[in-house]
Amino acid sequence: SMVNAVYKNAKRGGKTNFTVGIEDDLSNSSLKIDEFINAAPAGTIRCKFWGLGSDGTVGANKNSIKIIGDHTNKFVQGYFAYDSKKSGGVTISHLRFGNEPIKSSYLIDQADFVACSTPSYLFRYDMVSDIREGGTFLINSIWSPEEIGAQLPAKVKNIIASKKLKFYTIDANAIAAKLGLGGRTNTILQASFFYLSQVIPYADAESYMKKAAEKSYKKKGDAIVKMNFDAIDNATQQLFEVKYPEDWATATEGAAMQVPFGSDYFNSTINPILEQQGDKLPVSAFTPDGVVPTGTTQYEKRGIAVKVPVWVKENCIQCNKCSAVCPHAVIRPTLASEEELKNAPASFETKDAIGVKVKGLKYRMQVSPFDCTGCGSCAQVCPAKEKALLMKPIAEVVAAEAKNFEYSATLPETKAEYFDTNTIKGSQYKKPLFEYSGACAGCGETPYVKLVTQLFGDRMIIANATGCSSIYGGSAPTCPYTKNDKGHGPAWANSLFEDNAEFGFGIHLAYKARRAAIETKITALKAAFERADYAEGVAAADAWLVGKDDTDASIAASASLISILEGCKDCGCDLDTLEQDIYKDKDCLVKKSIWIFGGDGWAYDIGYGGVDHVLASGEDVNILVLDTEVYSNTGGQASKSTPTGSIAKFAAAGKRVKKKDLGMMAMSYGYVYVAQVALGSNDAQVLKALKEAEAYKGPSLVIAYATCINHGVNMTGAMAEMKKAVDCGYWNLYRYNPSLLENNENPFTLDSKDPTGDFGEFLQGETRYSALKKQYPAVAESLYEKCKTDSEIRLASYKAKAAK
Amino acid sequence: SMVNAVYKNAKRGGKTNFTVGIEDDLSNSSLKIDEFINAAPAGTIRCKFWGLGSDGTVGANKNSIKIIGDHTNKFVQGYFAYDSKKSGGVTISHLRFGNEPIKSSYLIDQADFVACSTPSYLFRYDMVSDIREGGTFLINSIWSPEEIGAQLPAKVKNIIASKKLKFYTIDANAIAAKLGLGGRTNTILQASFFYLSQVIPYADAESYMKKAAEKSYKKKGDAIVKMNFDAIDNATQQLFEVKYPEDWATATEGAAMQVPFGSDYFNSTINPILEQQGDKLPVSAFTPDGVVPTGTTQYEKRGIAVKVPVWVKENCIQCNKCSAVCPHAVIRPTLASEEELKNAPASFETKDAIGVKVKGLKYRMQVSPFDCTGCGSCAQVCPAKEKALLMKPIAEVVAAEAKNFEYSATLPETKAEYFDTNTIKGSQYKKPLFEYSGACAGCGETPYVKLVTQLFGDRMIIANATGCSSIYGGSAPTCPYTKNDKGHGPAWANSLFEDNAEFGFGIHLAYKARRAAIETKITALKAAFERADYAEGVAAADAWLVGKDDTDASIAASASLISILEGCKDCGCDLDTLEQDIYKDKDCLVKKSIWIFGGDGWAYDIGYGGVDHVLASGEDVNILVLDTEVYSNTGGQASKSTPTGSIAKFAAAGKRVKKKDLGMMAMSYGYVYVAQVALGSNDAQVLKALKEAEAYKGPSLVIAYATCINHGVNMTGAMAEMKKAVDCGYWNLYRYNPSLLENNENPFTLDSKDPTGDFGEFLQGETRYSALKKQYPAVAESLYEKCKTDSEIRLASYKAKAAK
Repeated sequence: SMVNAVYKNAKRGGKTNFTVGIEDDLSNSSLKIDEFINAAPAGTIRCKFWGLGSDGTVGANKNSIKIIGDHTNKFVQGYFAYDSKKSGGVTISHLRFGNEPIKSSYLIDQADFVACSTPSYLFRYDMVSDIREGGTFLINSIWSPEEIGAQLPAKVKNIIASKKLKFYTIDANAIAAKLGLGGRTNTILQASFFYLSQVIPYADAESYMKKAAEKSYKKKGDAIVKMNFDAIDNATQQLFEVKYPEDWATATEGAAMQVPFGSDYFNSTINPILEQQGDKLPVSAFTPDGVVPTGTTQYEKRGIAVKVPVWVKENCIQCNKCSAVCPHAVIRPTLASEEELKNAPASFETKDAIGVKVKGLKYRMQVSPFDCTGCGSCAQVCPAKEKALLMKPIAEVVAAEAKNFEYSATLPETKAEYFDTNTIKGSQYKKPLFEYSGACAGCGETPYVKLVTQLFGDRMIIANATGCSSIYGGSAPTCPYTKNDKGHGPAWANSLFEDNAEFGFGIHLAYKARRAAIETKITALKAAFERADYAEGVAAADAWLVGKDDTDASIAASASLISILEGCKDCGCDLDTLEQDIYKDKDCLVKKSIWIFGGDGWAYDIGYGGVDHVLASGEDVNILVLDTEVYSNTGGQASKSTPTGSIAKFAAAGKRVKKKDLGMMAMSYGYVYVAQVALGSNDAQVLKALKEAEAYKGPSLVIAYATCINHGVNMTGAMAEMKKAVDCGYWNLYRYNPSLLENNENPFTLDSKDPTGDFGEFLQGETRYSALKKQYPAVAESLYEKCKTDSEIRLASYKAKAAK
Repeated sequence: SMVNAVYKNAKRGGKTNFTVGIEDDLSNSSLKIDEFINAAPAGTIRCKFWGLGSDGTVGANKNSIKIIGDHTNKFVQGYFAYDSKKSGGVTISHLRFGNEPIKSSYLIDQADFVACSTPSYLFRYDMVSDIREGGTFLINSIWSPEEIGAQLPAKVKNIIASKKLKFYTIDANAIAAKLGLGGRTNTILQASFFYLSQVIPYADAESYMKKAAEKSYKKKGDAIVKMNFDAIDNATQQLFEVKYPEDWATATEGAAMQVPFGSDYFNSTINPILEQQGDKLPVSAFTPDGVVPTGTTQYEKRGIAVKVPVWVKENCIQCNKCSAVCPHAVIRPTLASEEELKNAPASFETKDAIGVKVKGLKYRMQVSPFDCTGCGSCAQVCPAKEKALLMKPIAEVVAAEAKNFEYSATLPETKAEYFDTNTIKGSQYKKPLFEYSGACAGCGETPYVKLVTQLFGDRMIIANATGCSSIYGGSAPTCPYTKNDKGHGPAWANSLFEDNAEFGFGIHLAYKARRAAIETKITALKAAFERADYAEGVAAADAWLVGKDDTDASIAASASLISILEGCKDCGCDLDTLEQDIYKDKDCLVKKSIWIFGGDGWAYDIGYGGVDHVLASGEDVNILVLDTEVYSNTGGQASKSTPTGSIAKFAAAGKRVKKKDLGMMAMSYGYVYVAQVALGSNDAQVLKALKEAEAYKGPSLVIAYATCINHGVNMTGAMAEMKKAVDCGYWNLYRYNPSLLENNENPFTLDSKDPTGDFGEFLQGETRYSALKKQYPAVAESLYEKCKTDSEIRLASYKAKAAK
């Protein structure tokens, strides 16, 4: 048999690169382009599969290609088109099977079979127009064949009926949930495809699928293999044909297509790309310097969650922990007066806010169901006796909650002034200036990023290393960084993997130089004001000169100074040139908060030379390392952060050398602020570390432990997993604050307690470790033991530092 | 006035790049090339100055350009041509002065004035052929006008007389020595030039020169300025015209031109380049892959020393320390039997060798006067009660000692077998496989490089980072790495500044893979030999398999195996293919010693990301950092190794942040061998560290303190300066040997004693520190204090490690 597959991979930064996989036919072809286009031989079956990036659709389709290629004499071909979300993005697999060589080198536009694993796509994408007359359309949905008619947009019904499509539904999520497969519906939909398409006899297909599942999943354990076998067995039993009435052809009623809302930029540029029409945009739609507006993920409303949290107000203790851990900033506390709430929808229930200062205000925890990815982290961390958040099928709550969320956005932005940000509770009243990113459901990194923006976002500039954080932080066409109601928010840019620390350092030096220049000018301005006996002006200039390096003082002084400058055109003091000169650089009046973000692949490995150089410089920049202990974005290669015994690419038989102690190396300078944190273990310590790091007038390094899908854990429990890591001594929390040296205090504080958890149990709870025992039983135990010893030695070294 | 200067700079790697300095005329010229060539206006004075790279000739000539440009209305131009030796290389300054704009864009080939600051050049280069009729020739020499006739080659006398040149001598070295200027004769020769050329009235030139000297040297202190003033005042008093007889025109007797000797490669390729005729070589003179023979510096015989050491045998205690510290491997102990010495020259005096094993042998310390740079380090370190080495003018001893050295090279290579290499004394009986490099006189780095080659050179592969060590280690056309009498010596290559650790790591991985492959083949060979009952073969194969990772065992086993393979063609065992397969890879039978060399600019800064990555790998490679605490090769830029308070480029007002503790960072891995050493302080510790590092079956890092001309010290005392650095606690000696962990011993040993020396005095003894006080008195003291505190904190951290 021959396999003829070309993978279209547009994942990285949204560029349409072609990565050629196995291409027996195309590469040697002497056909001209016209012949190519028309070369699809008769009898070829063309299939399109719409899915979420994280639901395994693409993997299943690649498996299908292999099954057909290996077990029939058919020719097969696949193109795979991705968007650039870390997960939850759209994937479309274009598959062709036929008895003649396939020479079609373009995406499928007349399909025999279309399947969709994501119910909400019905309201976002036109999936039926390019199915040929009499073709098959399969949709994964919670609706029964009887219910579905009422749920479909009229236009979809028109096309289904007029083209006489065969139409099927399957509630794959229900099956998957029942079998313990969580959101992974790929095997179920693959089975449905083989069942409906009959491209090979289904009994044969069933056994091939099982063999493939065994091969794919045996590393992950027998239980997982069995679940997939069960999925194959159960798929067809839950597959129903929809016998629709003929009058669907002329239906005018039905669910609305989701009409996105937004700015001109959204309508002209973002939305066409989201609708998979980006290739049709002219070059002129983009700015030459690549600058794009921020705050545009809010318009996506992807609606990819299967279940979303619903607030149970009676149980809520108003701790805001759910908000703090949410990877996508979709659950937020609101505080409002009864007066402000007078136009609230009926379902916008509230309760009395707890706290002396907020007496009389009303409190509510509000979810944005269309932005939620359904990870369940919020409900998992809820510490109330009875959970104050329950995960419910989105269909049940979306109508009311979407409206509630829309309403909550009209309320005054925050009531942050009632709480300081020294507590997690207080910090969550500040608007996240990072929201609705394309990160994976349950991502362990994004809560840190979000928290940093809540604390410093309004005067923050971020240099972002390549990696997950640059993909979820800046994937065209939308930007998750956003602004507060004053229009202030982070400026963000991504340079290269190997130079991000230097990139951020350069940004810092540029501001430093610009602020030094403006200082000279404001000193001159103050003198001129003095000569002119303009006391208010003198005071404003002086306040800036005195307070320019203090965050709060510089914010206040900058505001007064800008108002003086704006008003001073009429004061007759004849300083026009100087004032205009200062005014045009007013963006650098407020003290900036310079941040350098990246993962461990960057900070421990590829960008470490720069990280070290920038830390050594003594300059006031802040580095946040999102440490997943593996190259997450590129699919799990070992980094120097990967601990002994962990399985990763390039360390398939378990990493043999221990995790690099990046923090210890940075502490050797003595003048670098260093902290290790883990949000799921001690959120107050995270907050303290971030605030100390930012306040320290020198280089800072915060190393944040982040649970990741690459660890092989249920991401709903990401926060609990972090806690386990700290409890068993796998990860330690500490802060090294050089400021304490000024008072002759020990700069090092060990914040985590002596380990009480079971180290071995923790390792066995993560597939990256537990899989080693299956594949390399001979070495597994000794590597686990070494991993533990490494941790003990590391902890001992921290204790020694703490004891000094 | 106008200055029109184009600097021809061929320093880096010998490439002829043009760096355009100030070029008012040429860049805007519309003249065609023919007009250019013929455009030198009448009345232009053309001068050529031959000098050593380190004697200040070029600097003085640049000053002369400035003096004439600033104080007359003449046009001036200079081209400066360098070779690529770190110092002691040839420089030729081509200067033109005139009343019309100078458009000549070529080197001078008809000079009005030629001066030479290096006496030995008379016997190496033809300096007089391109002086025009009646022009002036000035030579720095120790000979009086009366003596010089007897010292000149006949050809030189012919040309001087037949062209009726004005001929002058000056003993600039005598004047400089008397004034305390050491070897720096530049100011004296500059004054002579102004005096003889009369390009401006000499009284004016004198005052301009003094102003320039003040400007150049005031940073270095008033004493230096005064010395240069004295040099100007004294120059002309010691300048003598040589009134030569007319019969010089037909003289046939005189000193011989130094006829270099050597291989075909030397004659065809090296010598033309050394004679400044390299531009005339065809491309075909070089190999396409850039591979060149090693051991070719021996043919240079540069003869650049003013004084060379002479052995006083009565005083010698045979410690070989002089040999150990010699930066150019020009002073070597010889051991020979009386029988072997029977053809020795009369002046080849010896004494009885000390030691039981060597009873009956004769000992001599032999210098190669033509290879010596005259730094005097050997005499300085001589610990004998009365110095056993005296520095004497080369002219007095060269005839005899050159012959003695030539003779010593004919003796059996070493008597190393009588001593082990665990002592410095013993190590020096091994032939240095790195000799006569282009390093500066007194270089603090090259003694380390030399010692490593004495210990491991016969099976060593070196990856060399860009920097001083790559320039003196591999400057075209000669190579200082050489071979022993078995033809074994280091293989050497230089990659980039930023990837040298990776480069060496790749070499290691390649050998590892090749040796793994050959292990499989030898295992098969052993089995075949067993089947053939070939006991000798089985034993040889087995010995290799068992001993392949042990240095001595692998050397012995490889020798037996190779002899078996070579002899086995006739044994009839029908293993031809396998045997040939092994035999063709016989270069990897012996365990290799992989070394990665570089300076602190590489290891602490530009290459640190790679250094860290390679150390973290756990693989068996050895890194030697030659730590001068500054980017030496590029002229003294601050690196992260530069300590607080040191002046360097980019830290002109004193470095503000402390020296990075590279060793501490590497020790954080726990499985990296780390040592800090200083040859001038504790040579036995250096030896121990190098041997432990090489023996350790994992990554090793040896950080070697190296005094450098950039420190602003008299390099004769480089070793004493290192001792001071350690004695005052500025530099600490330690070894961290992870092997000790196996026995539960503390891997860390602090080898240097508690500081007893005066820290401040040490700093004030080096211009890099003392100059700060002159230029930035306000901050100097506090930076000195911080430097001291930094050192104390560092030492405390080592003590804590030692105490564990």
